[in-house]
Amino acid sequence: MRERQSAAIVTIGSELVEGLRIDTNTAEIARDVSRFGFRVDEAISVGDDETVLADTLRRLVHVHPMVVVTGGLGPTHDDVTRDAAAAALGITMEADPALTAFLQPFLARHSDPRSAAQVLTQAFVLQGAEVLPPTNGTAAGQVVPTPAGSLVLLPGPPREMRPMLARVLDRFTPDRAEPRELGVTGLAESDVQHAAQTALAAFDGIQLTVLAKPGDVRVILLDDGAGEAALDRAANAIAAEVGAPCYSTDGSTLAETIVAEAAAREVTIAVAESCTGGLVAAALTDVPGSSAVFLGGAVTYSNAAKSRLLSVDPEDLKFFGAVSREVAQQMAEGALDAFGADIAVSVTGIAGPAGGSNEKPVGTVWFGVASRVGEGVDAQASVAWNGASREAIRARAASSALNLIRREVLKA
Amino acid sequence: MRERQSAAIVTIGSELVEGLRIDTNTAEIARDVSRFGFRVDEAISVGDDETVLADTLRRLVHVHPMVVVTGGLGPTHDDVTRDAAAAALGITMEADPALTAFLQPFLARHSDPRSAAQVLTQAFVLQGAEVLPPTNGTAAGQVVPTPAGSLVLLPGPPREMRPMLARVLDRFTPDRAEPRELGVTGLAESDVQHAAQTALAAFDGIQLTVLAKPGDVRVILLDDGAGEAALDRAANAIAAEVGAPCYSTDGSTLAETIVAEAAAREVTIAVAESCTGGLVAAALTDVPGSSAVFLGGAVTYSNAAKSRLLSVDPEDLKFFGAVSREVAQQMAEGALDAFGADIAVSVTGIAGPAGGSNEKPVGTVWFGVASRVGEGVDAQASVAWNGASREAIRARAASSALNLIRREVLKA
Repeated sequence: MRERQSAAIVTIGSELVEGLRIDTNTAEIARDVSRFGFRVDEAISVGDDETVLADTLRRLVHVHPMVVVTGGLGPTHDDVTRDAAAAALGITMEADPALTAFLQPFLARHSDPRSAAQVLTQAFVLQGAEVLPPTNGTAAGQVVPTPAGSLVLLPGPPREMRPMLARVLDRFTPDRAEPRELGVTGLAESDVQHAAQTALAAFDGIQLTVLAKPGDVRVILLDDGAGEAALDRAANAIAAEVGAPCYSTDGSTLAETIVAEAAAREVTIAVAESCTGGLVAAALTDVPGSSAVFLGGAVTYSNAAKSRLLSVDPEDLKFFGAVSREVAQQMAEGALDAFGADIAVSVTGIAGPAGGSNEKPVGTVWFGVASRVGEGVDAQASVAWNGASREAIRARAASSALNLIRREVLKA
Repeated sequence: MRERQSAAIVTIGSELVEGLRIDTNTAEIARDVSRFGFRVDEAISVGDDETVLADTLRRLVHVHPMVVVTGGLGPTHDDVTRDAAAAALGITMEADPALTAFLQPFLARHSDPRSAAQVLTQAFVLQGAEVLPPTNGTAAGQVVPTPAGSLVLLPGPPREMRPMLARVLDRFTPDRAEPRELGVTGLAESDVQHAAQTALAAFDGIQLTVLAKPGDVRVILLDDGAGEAALDRAANAIAAEVGAPCYSTDGSTLAETIVAEAAAREVTIAVAESCTGGLVAAALTDVPGSSAVFLGGAVTYSNAAKSRLLSVDPEDLKFFGAVSREVAQQMAEGALDAFGADIAVSVTGIAGPAGGSNEKPVGTVWFGVASRVGEGVDAQASVAWNGASREAIRARAASSALNLIRREVLKA
């Protein structure tokens, strides 16, 4: 393995140093450049201040062979990156004819001539720089030669930044295999960590990171000399050690796994949601191609809607309450019928902060499963996530519902 | 208003520069110190590397009156902050008797004498430093005098860091009002920026930040000497200049605004979603208290579900297609009836990547509005977001649907 060169990442925006937004670009860029022979020594956020940014860049371009900057390339007066980079390197800028032509259609959208003039600032390119054409937006990226190597200027929005970064890194040779990422649901972070460490005892040159969010744990394996084949074997060993809660070894989300498995088995899915309020349906429909397997969902917040759309017995709603085993089961059966699906899963619970009682505290959630693929109507589960926030309860309940769908799909 | 002093924030951890974890401490610390007379010029993440950290601190302690460092104060060999700070300032460390005594009970937990010795590294205090006693953990914080002011060393875990930071900032006087945040939907970022600048021309001492994501623009006003009353007047002036697309001046999301306005007017809401697949319902139900106004939603991905749940005419589905003015309108009317709501909004479109045609390209979205509060059935809109990603089309369509709901609620 060759010596790794140092890199720095700079993210720009007053909202970052004022603490109004959390920076997610740094982590993404760090993961990518780390695979292409670079070791990220520092990641810096600075405000939309040309002087501070120029000072920062002046220092970095002499130290690091790779300096990646995101943000500040848009058309507003806050966008100071081009000017700061020119000042830091002591070079000039010029309007690029191709970029100027590209920007013409966008000028017409502005009635105010000052706004139009601002749009054209995006055509300016630093002396000697290579232009990375705009992708999913109007801002171009630039690769500028520096005393130590390269300064790469990228737009801040991730969907504009990503393809340009990929284009730049294409010129370098990866010296690490891509990280492997496993998805696990329904297990605590510490249990996943323990299982992964046990499985990894037989491997060298793999760095383990376990990251948790409500209802989902990701296991990340970084190549530290082990190579592709060993990473694959390690991922499989961890999947075997974790067992059924491990739903993917290729980085897929739980919803992506469900859509792929359901498509392969030709089974259709419907959902009935109360406390998750559409999160389960939104997760499934986020997956391209989901329309082949997902027929739809009913978000029934009111009792009347549960009865009208899902044929839940109004007497049972009164007697057992909307958050109950009986109503959960009737919701699932109602969705199975209403959508004509092979599998239907329901969620009804109390996400809070209000609505809890001694008997049914905030965090109480019932799930129902109705299915034509297994042995008819299936099991139900109740979980109480006491003390969790509304957001965490909803996220965990949505993960649990997706996991019930996954288990049922795998029976087909 | 006194001159603001510059500050820097340093977060330490290899997981940050390797991109395995997103840094949330920086945003939190930045918000806090910004209100107490400091202007954060730079926020830096470095790995667990003593040399790189010492170099970074050596530069910062000569420039910034306030340097806040989090992380690297624990008992493991990865915890290099104390040593790096001593090297950067050219000072020595000494074991603090009180901290040594505090750590004794923790030594017993380690059978290995080397681990025990590591625990005691947490008792070392830099020459001339003030100790911030451990809170919710075993790591002490330190306030170290520097050439430019103070170097504040804090543990990384937020629950240990927070109370110590509060104790340090207690010595300073807040000199800024809390930021104001406005929400705007249905306008381009540059138009919002222009309107905000126009309105702000009459104000001094307010710093403007405009942030955009698909379908939503946030305008943030930072106090730079203007004070509470002027910030309120400026927020109102911007709201007036932007007009109807501005939905909040108090930081509320679009969904929060809808829930609050609908509750005040006692109107109920239902939705019918196709391409947004539950995003509209999920956004509304994310708001605590939404159950008072949101009755539910139907996510009808298949044509059969559109007919069964929302009574869309199967002949019209065949003749006009699922993505059409006629079907959008019938979906809205069907949801109004099925849920017994006062207002129902529908979305049907092609989010892609597949499913587009020449006549109806990916990005074509129809909206329907049915309402008992305005003048009966309402207008519809069609938008084609050509070239946008599936994710962006879904997000924009959901924002547009929410905005249609908001406009209808405001008629009540």
